[in-house]
Amino acid sequence: MTQLDKVRKWVNDNKLDVAYISDPKSIEYLTGFASDPVERILGLFVFADKEPFLFAPALEVEAIRDTGWRFPVYGYLDHEQPFEMIASEIKKRSANPTHWAIEKNNLTIAHFNAIKSQFPTANFDMDLTPSIEQLRLIKTPDEIEKLDAAGREADLAFKIGFEAVQVGRPEAEIAAELEYVLKKKGVMQMSFDTLIQAGAHAAEPHGATAMNKIQNNELVLFDLGTIHQGYISDASRTVAVGKPNEKSMDIYKVCLEAQLTAQTQAKPGMIAQDLDKIARDIITKAGYGEYFIHRLGHGMGMGEHEFPSIMQGNEMVLKEGMCFSIEPGIYIPGVAGVRIEDCVHITKNGCEPFTHTSKELTYVG
Amino acid sequence: MTQLDKVRKWVNDNKLDVAYISDPKSIEYLTGFASDPVERILGLFVFADKEPFLFAPALEVEAIRDTGWRFPVYGYLDHEQPFEMIASEIKKRSANPTHWAIEKNNLTIAHFNAIKSQFPTANFDMDLTPSIEQLRLIKTPDEIEKLDAAGREADLAFKIGFEAVQVGRPEAEIAAELEYVLKKKGVMQMSFDTLIQAGAHAAEPHGATAMNKIQNNELVLFDLGTIHQGYISDASRTVAVGKPNEKSMDIYKVCLEAQLTAQTQAKPGMIAQDLDKIARDIITKAGYGEYFIHRLGHGMGMGEHEFPSIMQGNEMVLKEGMCFSIEPGIYIPGVAGVRIEDCVHITKNGCEPFTHTSKELTYVG
Repeated sequence: MTQLDKVRKWVNDNKLDVAYISDPKSIEYLTGFASDPVERILGLFVFADKEPFLFAPALEVEAIRDTGWRFPVYGYLDHEQPFEMIASEIKKRSANPTHWAIEKNNLTIAHFNAIKSQFPTANFDMDLTPSIEQLRLIKTPDEIEKLDAAGREADLAFKIGFEAVQVGRPEAEIAAELEYVLKKKGVMQMSFDTLIQAGAHAAEPHGATAMNKIQNNELVLFDLGTIHQGYISDASRTVAVGKPNEKSMDIYKVCLEAQLTAQTQAKPGMIAQDLDKIARDIITKAGYGEYFIHRLGHGMGMGEHEFPSIMQGNEMVLKEGMCFSIEPGIYIPGVAGVRIEDCVHITKNGCEPFTHTSKELTYVG
Repeated sequence: MTQLDKVRKWVNDNKLDVAYISDPKSIEYLTGFASDPVERILGLFVFADKEPFLFAPALEVEAIRDTGWRFPVYGYLDHEQPFEMIASEIKKRSANPTHWAIEKNNLTIAHFNAIKSQFPTANFDMDLTPSIEQLRLIKTPDEIEKLDAAGREADLAFKIGFEAVQVGRPEAEIAAELEYVLKKKGVMQMSFDTLIQAGAHAAEPHGATAMNKIQNNELVLFDLGTIHQGYISDASRTVAVGKPNEKSMDIYKVCLEAQLTAQTQAKPGMIAQDLDKIARDIITKAGYGEYFIHRLGHGMGMGEHEFPSIMQGNEMVLKEGMCFSIEPGIYIPGVAGVRIEDCVHITKNGCEPFTHTSKELTYVG
C-alpha cells in the first residue's frame, strides 16, 4: 500500500468525500513531485472511491508527468480562476461533497475562503495535518537509505570545509568554496544556507555566515546539510583553529559530553522530553544551562522541521524509524558558541547517526 | 511617516483594536527584521493608540534588537504556549479587543484558530493583506536604490557566468563557479537557485540547473538574481555557443523584439494587461504564441512574487514607483528555450531597468 493509498483509506475510514492537500511538502511526500508554487495554487485532491488528481500551474504540468504521476493533473494559466476549475473537477467525481478534510497547518484563510465559497454548505472541520504528520513520522527503509546518502554528503562537506579553513579567510569564502567543490562532485543542493561562524560570532545561534575573518585561537562552528533525492542531511561540528581559550575549550567539552550521552541513550520507548533532559542536565550541571537556549532536536526527513520535536513538554514516545537531530549548543555572548549535531534514526535497540565525521575536537587551519 | 506608522493609522482609521501581521515578508518590510520562522511563531501586533510589539522565538530576540527595533519584543521558548503569551500581552494594551485585522493570504487555519480561541468573541473579518500589498506596491526612492544595487550585482553575475561557459562543461559547474566568484566579491546571497539551461533543456521553463553539458551550436539560458540589503534582482539572458540552428536564432529574434518593445512602451497610466499584450502579440504574430506559456512579468522588490502582475486579466494601472519584470519567453520542446528579462521601475515618463547587460545576442564559450 503506497502512502497515497493510506490517505485514501483514511478518507474512506472517516467517511469523508474529499481531502484537500495543500502543503507542497505533503504533496512531494505523496506524489514525488517537488515544487514551491509560492502564490500560485498547487493542490492534491484525494477521494475515497475515485482517482485522486493534482491541480497545478500550467507551467508545472509537464514536470509532474515526468515524475511518473499516473493520475490526472490539471493545469491553469495565470489569468484563469483556479478554485472554479478545482470545484468543477471535484463535482465530476463527487456531486455534492459535504465532508472535507484540509491541512489546517498549511491552508491559508484566503485559500480556505476561496474553496469554501465554491462549496458553501460543506463541512471543513476535519484536519488532515495530524494524519499526514503521522505517516511522515516513521521513515520507511527506502527513506532511511536516502537519508544515509544525504548524511554521507554532509560528511564530505565537512571534509571540504575543514580543509578550506585558514586564518584570515572570511567565513563566507569558506562556505562558497565548500559549496563549489560539492557541486563539482555532483552534490547539487544544500538543504539550507551553509553556516560557518567563527569565534564570538558563533554565539548568535541564528546568525548568518558573514565576511567575518577566521582568527587564530578560536572555535569555528559549521552547520550544514545537503538534499539527496528529496531527503536532507543536517549536521553541525565545531572545530578549533590554534589554541582557543580555556572557556571555549570547556564549553566544547561539556557540549560534547551532552551530545554523546544523549546519542548513546536514545532508543525506542524513550519519551522525547526525557532525551532533551539528559543533555540539558549535563549542560546545566556544568553551569551553562542558561546558554543552551533551544530544544535538543527537531524531526527531519524531507525537511528539517518535521516530528518528533525533542524538547521539554513533548511526551511523544520514540519509535523505530523516527528521525531527528541531537544538537546541544552552548552560546556565550562575546566569547564563543559551540554546537555539535548528528541526525539519527531510531533502530530496534538504540539509534544510528546519518553522519560520521568525528566529534572529538578537530584542529584545522 | 514610516510604513509602520501608516499601518497604525490604517488600524485607527478602520476603528480596529489590533492588527496581527503574520507574514515574515510583511514583518521584514515594516520592521527591517528578516527571518523565516518556519513552524515557530513570529508576529507583529499593531494598535491604534499603543506601541506595537513583536513576538518571536527566544532565539531571534537578540537579532531583532540588533536591527534597531525600538518597541517591545517578547520571546518564547519551544515548550511555552505562544498564543497564550501573545494574548496576555495584547490584553495589557487593549482590555477587550474585538475588532481585528489579519493577513488572510498568510495566516493558516491552525494559527487563526489558536488566536481565535484566546479571543472567542472577537471579529476577524478585516483583511490586512490588501493594505500591506498596497504599501509595498509603490517603492520609495530608498527601495529603488537598493534594487539598483542588486541589479548591478546581477550584471556582474552575468559577466562571470558568460566567461565560465565552455563546451563540455556541465550547467551546474558554471552555476557553482558563478556563485563562488560572486561570494568572493562579497555578493553573499542569491535570490533563487541560479538557473542555467542549455539547448533543449531550456524548453522546460521551470526546470532546474543540472549536470547537462554545454554543447556547441546551442543557446544557453541564464536566469539569476541576488539579494542586496533585503531587495532582490532577477534577470534572464540567453546567449549563444557556436552557431545555434535557424529555429533557435528565429525565436531569439522574436523574443528580443517582444522584450524591447514592451520595455520601451511601459509607462505610467498603462494597464498591466495591455503591456502583456504588446509582447504577446509580437510573439503570436511570429507564430510562437502557444510557446509563450507564462505571464509577461511579476512584481518584485523584497521578493520576486509581489505586485503588479503583468498578465491578461490584470487591469491595474501602472504608476511611478511600481517594479516588475518584463520577461517574454519562447519554449519549443525538444528544440530550445529563450527568455530575456529585465526588471524595471516605472518612472515619471517611462521605465528604467535595474540590469544593463546587453540584450543583443551574445556569443560565449
